[in-house]
Amino acid sequence: MTPKIARFLTEQKPATPCLVVDLDCVRGQYRALHDALPSSRIHYAVKANPAPAILKELNNLGSFFDIASPGEIDICMKAGIPAQKLSFGHTVKTARSIAYAHQKGLTLYAFDCIEELRKLAEHAPGCEVFCRLGVLNTGAQWPLSRKFGTTPESAFTLLQQARDLGLKPAGLSFHVGSQQTSTEAYGDAIAQAAGIYHRLRQQGITLDFINMGGGFPTYYNSPIPSIDQFGKAIATAMTTHFPEGAPRILLEPGRYMVGSAGVVHTEVVLSSKRGGGDNTPRWVYLDIGRFGGLAETEGESIRYTFQTPHDENTASRSPCILAGPTCDSMDVLYEKNLVPLPEELKTGDRVNILATGAYVSTYCSTGFNGFPPLDEHYI
Amino acid sequence: MTPKIARFLTEQKPATPCLVVDLDCVRGQYRALHDALPSSRIHYAVKANPAPAILKELNNLGSFFDIASPGEIDICMKAGIPAQKLSFGHTVKTARSIAYAHQKGLTLYAFDCIEELRKLAEHAPGCEVFCRLGVLNTGAQWPLSRKFGTTPESAFTLLQQARDLGLKPAGLSFHVGSQQTSTEAYGDAIAQAAGIYHRLRQQGITLDFINMGGGFPTYYNSPIPSIDQFGKAIATAMTTHFPEGAPRILLEPGRYMVGSAGVVHTEVVLSSKRGGGDNTPRWVYLDIGRFGGLAETEGESIRYTFQTPHDENTASRSPCILAGPTCDSMDVLYEKNLVPLPEELKTGDRVNILATGAYVSTYCSTGFNGFPPLDEHYI
Repeated sequence: MTPKIARFLTEQKPATPCLVVDLDCVRGQYRALHDALPSSRIHYAVKANPAPAILKELNNLGSFFDIASPGEIDICMKAGIPAQKLSFGHTVKTARSIAYAHQKGLTLYAFDCIEELRKLAEHAPGCEVFCRLGVLNTGAQWPLSRKFGTTPESAFTLLQQARDLGLKPAGLSFHVGSQQTSTEAYGDAIAQAAGIYHRLRQQGITLDFINMGGGFPTYYNSPIPSIDQFGKAIATAMTTHFPEGAPRILLEPGRYMVGSAGVVHTEVVLSSKRGGGDNTPRWVYLDIGRFGGLAETEGESIRYTFQTPHDENTASRSPCILAGPTCDSMDVLYEKNLVPLPEELKTGDRVNILATGAYVSTYCSTGFNGFPPLDEHYI
Repeated sequence: MTPKIARFLTEQKPATPCLVVDLDCVRGQYRALHDALPSSRIHYAVKANPAPAILKELNNLGSFFDIASPGEIDICMKAGIPAQKLSFGHTVKTARSIAYAHQKGLTLYAFDCIEELRKLAEHAPGCEVFCRLGVLNTGAQWPLSRKFGTTPESAFTLLQQARDLGLKPAGLSFHVGSQQTSTEAYGDAIAQAAGIYHRLRQQGITLDFINMGGGFPTYYNSPIPSIDQFGKAIATAMTTHFPEGAPRILLEPGRYMVGSAGVVHTEVVLSSKRGGGDNTPRWVYLDIGRFGGLAETEGESIRYTFQTPHDENTASRSPCILAGPTCDSMDVLYEKNLVPLPEELKTGDRVNILATGAYVSTYCSTGFNGFPPLDEHYI
């Protein structure tokens, strides 16, 4: 936790549950990524956290933005971001969404199949398009399904069809999986993209960019490579696979940019063995759970770090099952990977959940069990 | 789909995605349950769908209500329901929530451990309490975890401690699991509760009721027992295990009451093989998914029925992967259990998802990917 967040919690004593985000930290992440890959263009993935304070901060630093819906276009434009700095990186869009984006002035769109390409040609004529490749997600802690992306052969054909439909074939994209902890994942994907790039050049199509999506990790509870290491791996692969000069790199970081900047401040609702014997784990119920924003604990994929008021006394820790506040029995955060917490932890204690700036505020349900959406503080 | 909903969709052509609920159907469900177990008291589980129109309808029919938070207390009281008709059936409550409920006039509370009992004694002195037992969930399609409930031995002790703390030990509760399709599940749980009931009588404590929670199923795509069959199984078990006269039955139906009354009306955003060969399944993307309210498709647990405009032509169906509209790759509804859909299905077609009245509107995220919460129509 940053000193600024610690001070805010001490002085303001905000009601729980809430999310507190340190904007200095977001700024630091942007600059570190920019320094690691200076010639790249950064499109912040708005879905990770669309708070206006974050959007304005990144806009001032020169960031571009990737959006997923008309709703996110509106949020960005309301934050003062011009349409020219927005890419529509979602491959699946209603015709209405495309027409809306086109009318607002967006010029760059993703796709991964002929049906979507035809929609783009009809509703955003003349726009720039990039085709998403399906790549392996080895090494990602939140790997992506087969929901998006196509084969190299299909991408090669589709980008030519794009030209025939009057669109501008501008790039290729891929996503190595969210919370990607292997720097090598990028090299393989870049090699694949380069193959298509060179074949398309022979057809008279020169792509402007390779969009490497997001995936850069946030530190949760196990070591991750530095952003410089990712930068070096990417730069090396680009030099190797584009010996005659590489196209521009586009990046769509979401989790990387805001994950470490946020802390969820929560309260213990109940801590009890509930009739189990001495050797059974305690159940600790917090006032935030899977339906209050911590959706990425599904399958116990993302494993957060917890800070309690009793952390000095490390000797007294015992393994706990952690659950959320709703009366939905699926609302359990960790049951297989027990969390060691101090024996002294009791009802009413405040607990901080670190690195929760991304994919928390928006996953929150509208009011399941009558609990209101998460309070947010951007400082 | 009821004729009333069909007419509404044809005449009103509402924007998608939306939920349409037929209140006549809710009324029918209430009456059928009341007829199946005439002496029971029905506490509608507000979390299943807290729409004011549903609450008012059930209140007029004589229903009681089970709530899970101060937010749900407020919703109910605003709908004109008196505090005396509300039970706080959630075993995990903040001290503030208990104090709030007590101040509003609620008198009946659940618990399953000594820590919660002490909170109740302090913040709702003199209240009636019931202890939740953990029971097997065999036969449930949405089985509950070990998050709630205690052992029979512990319940026996706790209800005596409740008396010692100045509270009124009023009942035992259990939950056989949501979407329970076996009528036998209730018999075993009733036997267990009866054992504790008789032992407590010897200690001078006579419980008023056995609360059998919810669990009665909604028809999705495979046959379920009728509510009369459940009623008979429960009545028989009560006579068997309470030969000298049974305590009152309390029921907390949620899904049963509203599930079959609702239809989600959605639009096809994209239908494509996305570069796969002829033998690969199509991907069909709808404008509602796991983050727009269909959270119970997690693990493909609840399998809905889909109606399309091309259903006459059953010969042309082929298996599809069904996905939601967000650019989150976890937002896939069915990938293992492919859904046979007409070959003619295309972008822009309207699709109805049946029996979606429960656990949809409130699971919806506040705005993930910039998509607004689900529109709701109660007719």
